[in-house]
Amino acid sequence: MSTPGPMHVVQTFIGEWPKGLAELRQAFSDWLAEDARYENVGLTSTGTRDDAIALIDTFAEGLDNIAVDMLAIAQDGERVFTERVDYLRKADGTVLATIRLMGIFVVRDGRIVEWRDYFHAAPPSGGA
Amino acid sequence: MSTPGPMHVVQTFIGEWPKGLAELRQAFSDWLAEDARYENVGLTSTGTRDDAIALIDTFAEGLDNIAVDMLAIAQDGERVFTERVDYLRKADGTVLATIRLMGIFVVRDGRIVEWRDYFHAAPPSGGA
Repeated sequence: MSTPGPMHVVQTFIGEWPKGLAELRQAFSDWLAEDARYENVGLTSTGTRDDAIALIDTFAEGLDNIAVDMLAIAQDGERVFTERVDYLRKADGTVLATIRLMGIFVVRDGRIVEWRDYFHAAPPSGGA
Repeated sequence: MSTPGPMHVVQTFIGEWPKGLAELRQAFSDWLAEDARYENVGLTSTGTRDDAIALIDTFAEGLDNIAVDMLAIAQDGERVFTERVDYLRKADGTVLATIRLMGIFVVRDGRIVEWRDYFHAAPPSGGA
C-alpha cells in the first residue's frame, strides 16, 4: 500500500473538520504523528498528538466543528503551505470565530510531524 | 526582455530589505504594482504602492532595515508562499522586533499585486 502524499494528507485532515467534534478529534488522532509539533505561532505550542487533541477544547467555548475556505494551497516536497479562512462553529452552524490565517504542514510517512498556523489573535474587545 | 518569474520577484524584493531604509523603500517602489493590495492581516491594509511605502514608517520606531530568515518558500503559478522570521533592525544591527510569520505574494507581469503577511502581534506587555 502506498503512503498518501503530503498534499493528500493535509486535504484529507482538514476535510474532516467540518463534520463535527468527534470527527475533528479523530482527524487529529489519525493524521498527526505521535510526536507532532503543533503551534499556533505566538499563542500555543504542543509537542505530542495527545496534547494537540487536548488543545481542541480550548479553541472556543461551544465549538463543534471548523469549516474552512481554502484560499490557496501548495506543496513543496514534504511541506504543504495553506492560506485559509477557518470558521469555528457551533453544532447549529453559528460561527463563534472567523480566523484568517496561513498554515504550514510538514508531512513524513503519511503523518503530519510539524504544523504551524499563523494569525493575528486580536485582544478581546472592551465591548461595543 | 523576459519578465522575471514570481519566485524571482519575491526573492529579489525581500533580498533588498536588509540593506537599509533607502533600499527598503526603493524595493517597495520597484516591485509593488501601483495598485498593490498589501495587508498585515488583522492589523493594516493598504491599496496602493504609495500607501504601502508610507506604512514602512509605522513598522517600528528607529527602523533602518529588515533581515529575513527564509524558513520555507514555494511557488504555485502566480502565487509565492513564504514562512519567515523578519528581524526589524536599527542601523547598528540592534533588533527592534522579531516577527515569525507566513506571507503570500501574488505576482503578475513581474510586479507584486497582492501581498498578505500573517502573524500574531502580541499586545504591548504591561511590563516585567
